[in-house]
Amino acid sequence: MWQCASCGAGMPALPGLRGALECGHSMFEARFQTFEDASARGQSAARVAALRAELQRHGLDGFVIPRADRQQNEYLPASEERLAWLTGFTGSAGAAVVLRDSAAIFVDGRYTLQADAQVDGKVFSVEHLVERPPDQWITDNLKSGAKLGYDPWLHTSEQAEKLKKACAAAGAELVAVDGNPIDALWQDRPPSPSGAVSLRDLKLAGEAAPDKLKRVRAEIARLRADTLLVTDPQNVAWAFNIRGADVAHTPLALAFATIPRDGRPSLYVDSVKLNNAVRHAIEGFADVRTPDELARELEKLRGKIVRIDQASAADAFTQIISRHAKPQHGPDPITLLKATKNHAEIVGSRSAHRRDGAAVTRFLAWLDKEAPNGKLTEIDVVAALESFRRDTGALKDISFPTIAGAGPNGAIVHYRVTQASNRRIDKNQLLLVDSGAQYEDGTTDITRTVIVGEPSEEMRDRFTRVLKGHIAIATAIFPENTSGAQLDPLARTALWRAGLDFDHGTGHGVGSYLSVHEGPVRISKLGHVALRRGMILSNEPGYYKTAAYGIRIENLVLVIAAPEPVGAEKPLNVFETLTLAPIDRRLIEPSMLTDRERAWLDSYHERVQEIIGPLVDPAVRKWLEKATQPIGPLPRKQKKRRVATKSGRSRD
Amino acid sequence: MWQCASCGAGMPALPGLRGALECGHSMFEARFQTFEDASARGQSAARVAALRAELQRHGLDGFVIPRADRQQNEYLPASEERLAWLTGFTGSAGAAVVLRDSAAIFVDGRYTLQADAQVDGKVFSVEHLVERPPDQWITDNLKSGAKLGYDPWLHTSEQAEKLKKACAAAGAELVAVDGNPIDALWQDRPPSPSGAVSLRDLKLAGEAAPDKLKRVRAEIARLRADTLLVTDPQNVAWAFNIRGADVAHTPLALAFATIPRDGRPSLYVDSVKLNNAVRHAIEGFADVRTPDELARELEKLRGKIVRIDQASAADAFTQIISRHAKPQHGPDPITLLKATKNHAEIVGSRSAHRRDGAAVTRFLAWLDKEAPNGKLTEIDVVAALESFRRDTGALKDISFPTIAGAGPNGAIVHYRVTQASNRRIDKNQLLLVDSGAQYEDGTTDITRTVIVGEPSEEMRDRFTRVLKGHIAIATAIFPENTSGAQLDPLARTALWRAGLDFDHGTGHGVGSYLSVHEGPVRISKLGHVALRRGMILSNEPGYYKTAAYGIRIENLVLVIAAPEPVGAEKPLNVFETLTLAPIDRRLIEPSMLTDRERAWLDSYHERVQEIIGPLVDPAVRKWLEKATQPIGPLPRKQKKRRVATKSGRSRD
Repeated sequence: MWQCASCGAGMPALPGLRGALECGHSMFEARFQTFEDASARGQSAARVAALRAELQRHGLDGFVIPRADRQQNEYLPASEERLAWLTGFTGSAGAAVVLRDSAAIFVDGRYTLQADAQVDGKVFSVEHLVERPPDQWITDNLKSGAKLGYDPWLHTSEQAEKLKKACAAAGAELVAVDGNPIDALWQDRPPSPSGAVSLRDLKLAGEAAPDKLKRVRAEIARLRADTLLVTDPQNVAWAFNIRGADVAHTPLALAFATIPRDGRPSLYVDSVKLNNAVRHAIEGFADVRTPDELARELEKLRGKIVRIDQASAADAFTQIISRHAKPQHGPDPITLLKATKNHAEIVGSRSAHRRDGAAVTRFLAWLDKEAPNGKLTEIDVVAALESFRRDTGALKDISFPTIAGAGPNGAIVHYRVTQASNRRIDKNQLLLVDSGAQYEDGTTDITRTVIVGEPSEEMRDRFTRVLKGHIAIATAIFPENTSGAQLDPLARTALWRAGLDFDHGTGHGVGSYLSVHEGPVRISKLGHVALRRGMILSNEPGYYKTAAYGIRIENLVLVIAAPEPVGAEKPLNVFETLTLAPIDRRLIEPSMLTDRERAWLDSYHERVQEIIGPLVDPAVRKWLEKATQPIGPLPRKQKKRRVATKSGRSRD
Repeated sequence: MWQCASCGAGMPALPGLRGALECGHSMFEARFQTFEDASARGQSAARVAALRAELQRHGLDGFVIPRADRQQNEYLPASEERLAWLTGFTGSAGAAVVLRDSAAIFVDGRYTLQADAQVDGKVFSVEHLVERPPDQWITDNLKSGAKLGYDPWLHTSEQAEKLKKACAAAGAELVAVDGNPIDALWQDRPPSPSGAVSLRDLKLAGEAAPDKLKRVRAEIARLRADTLLVTDPQNVAWAFNIRGADVAHTPLALAFATIPRDGRPSLYVDSVKLNNAVRHAIEGFADVRTPDELARELEKLRGKIVRIDQASAADAFTQIISRHAKPQHGPDPITLLKATKNHAEIVGSRSAHRRDGAAVTRFLAWLDKEAPNGKLTEIDVVAALESFRRDTGALKDISFPTIAGAGPNGAIVHYRVTQASNRRIDKNQLLLVDSGAQYEDGTTDITRTVIVGEPSEEMRDRFTRVLKGHIAIATAIFPENTSGAQLDPLARTALWRAGLDFDHGTGHGVGSYLSVHEGPVRISKLGHVALRRGMILSNEPGYYKTAAYGIRIENLVLVIAAPEPVGAEKPLNVFETLTLAPIDRRLIEPSMLTDRERAWLDSYHERVQEIIGPLVDPAVRKWLEKATQPIGPLPRKQKKRRVATKSGRSRD
């Protein structure tokens, strides 16, 4: 125990803290996340005017600006933030179209408020990405005979095809530009990233790159292709057992690869990123070339069938390949190979989750102690959680900007706190914290929702329904070849019965020290890929009451074989829950849980205590013991709660 | 009571029986279903040789023969059974490809045995429709430079596109023929059907044709099309409020229509099918033309946007429209309008289900009495059920050939009994009976599985799991915009827990005195259309143990508004179960049901007894009272059954 130097509160002893000890915001620091929200709004009008002049010089009547780089990365290097440079909008998804006399920016529902604040309404109209998508706006606004420019490196072929149709419907033409006109105007454009490439330890990768490439070649043969073009840097990282430092929150090297069915693969990566040892190791099984050489190498594949992923590859690649070879559009087979984790990756993930569970548990204990003082803000929470994770000594990065949503901010599904939006953690409010870590042995992603003070009856009802959904996934038993789409509804029926739902998928795939959002598997309406043993996914149902609070309970789960019942006709799978941290018992209404649900919760908490308890100091352990006490069986005489209906009838 | 003239068994009094009364097969007759399985196998070699000669005359190296007519009907007129004429195969799905030196027929898993028996193996190789589909076989077998013919009237554009790609991959060419070469060879080809068209009573249709057409025109405007081409006779029937008699089991007139956004629609139907009164009534709101005129009328739509359903319209239509106008491929909007039943159609369906429930209940009582004698066969069962339905005086047709599968035949999902396959109903075996009726006020579809004698413990376990799935759908509460794909898994989880599943969808849409399988909505992995209030679907989970028995429990359900819980944020829907007939209680293991499941079963049976009881004679009513007794709550001390697992662990 120590006393806070500032407010005098008693605090559990925390190893790894230095200097004057204060509780709350002063003692923690976020290094992997910023809270600024700098918008280039003021310069937007001049930049758009300059762009229009540039377009006119090239005989174009308009230009499309997506938020994308050449590899459709989730996190863009600063040098690729053309949309933010032009419009001021800094959200993680969107696109703009600039025509001669009009311009529009398209953002989805979660970003409309932010776009209104960041974008100059005199220059751009703000449109809803889903309700009035760019292609429809183009058809409505482009003049017949006009030429609309697009950068074929920043759009997939699927996206380009849509734009082409939209132009055709307006009697106009879509024109691929040679060199992005914004790059010609962007004076202080940051340089392209040049993070060092490192080799992945074979103990962590579990399979040597040549062995992986052999399996990839077998897939290429099965698909009757001659060469696979790999444009997704996640897939390059997996196949070549390399990691990099080119984007935030994901250890990616921005690199490409070509893998022929027979012969040596080629890795295309900037020389500056490779030291001699790394280069030498890769050259043991692959040719190392620079990205400049890729187009020329593709031109050599005359008459060959080149597999290319239509969902992520730049349209420019399709154009290059079509000129000389035969493009075969379809998923990159590496995506599925990578999703199925091997033994070493599974062992690594379990280890990462023990470490992360201890850090999160320390955080939750600290929060439980500090939040009632009424001084903490969302930014304090983010900084504290990152600090607890850094204390592990193994944190490479956070796996995405932490979402800490107090009260109404919790209802914003993809909320990211800024100095402007930062809220105090008030009493009797819910706090939703969604965060994750990148450790070399695994990537984590966890959401806990906690109450500060006393929850309302409604909060307990909603939290318990979300928990029932979470448990339904955690305890699901399903045959091989079941898809995520088939499991998704199980997470919702308890909410449906009360006329509630949540507007996002139940889960996404997670990489092994790679992207926290990894394809192709997911638990959602759109998750048509079969779940296979070794896949890691999130289980994160939620409920969001606009302008009031948000609830989400998220653990990562691993698909494993189920014990086989006598008479079973199909191999069965279940989930092993990887994430280890207590779920706030104060928010649970026990009478709403079935015996089976209570049994899962108690056994989960028992496991958390057994595994995490020894990893934290005694004060936190004591807190954990209390936080993981069993809910236990329902007393016999306690009545089941019933939901009153407006018509006076009732049901469970 | 009366005594059987043949075996002396006592029988409940049954109104509507004439002549010498005998129990079992001698007293019933099937008029809407045949049990022959005539195959033209013997003539197949000569016919294929003649076809090859005919193809050579036209410079073709091969020809594709789908099982399809010009309107992609489920039940084909005899004049369209080209596949059966050529190959001998009489199953309900398949296709053949005849090349110069080889020929193959493609059937799915349910038809491989039948194809082996009906098809001359010296002429055709029998291929699996899914594992080695025609397009792949074509690519593998067609020679470079060859010309493969197809009849563009018998393939949709989607299907033709696939064939085209398959030919291109072989370096060959797909050629549309002008006139089907089989028709030139088929000497005794039956004439095209010429069933009389009748007008649908407005009281049953609930909406006059001009009002429906007004709604269709609003949809055409919304889709920005100029004219809708209606090629699906179900949609013609709905929009024009007509019924016909051109195919088996569905009251369809084989007719087409064009509906312009502005102006009078046209109905294309053979004059011989219309009497003066019907023609006069239709001419009140539409032009009546012959099908011959359709191509010419389409040619007049120069420059117009013509909406055409790519999933059901013949490729020939796309070709005609493309020459003069702009085809807009997309679902026919009538399909969705038709699926949402109006008040009159719902009232009609409830009435049809009361009538049908009484007939099925009489059948089940009779079966329960007769089957233990060990003399009944599957064909007797089919004939008896049809007779009980005819006794209602309202039966227009059965809605599909009754599936009566005893023992191992029950495991064949789409089993249709023939003289060759006919099995005796043995003791201690399950009997699965899936059947339906066409009444003017509604179409029905019901499956009951009953035990003759004593069920095994395994049978009770499996039946109860299927019942749990059925109840999960029957009691589902789900928000507006939920799709059938989201509900489908609820019907499976009880089977999944035991390592079991069923290999078909949980439900399909059902028409109003129209097709028993009606799009676009279904409860299945592929059911991505949202369920809307007024839609009627089947709820039919099952379980099939190959070579042993089959179980299916099927009721039709109607989507209705749910009572709204306090605090609900979304409109909620539930199902009203329309079908009224007892579910065999002897096959239920009560300890496997939850309180909620038992409550549903008992209240369903109570409703069946209340509604059907007064509609049947006293002897049947007495039987029904026993068959619908409550299962009741589980005694306190009775233990829940547990499934033993091979690893020695157990779970519920």
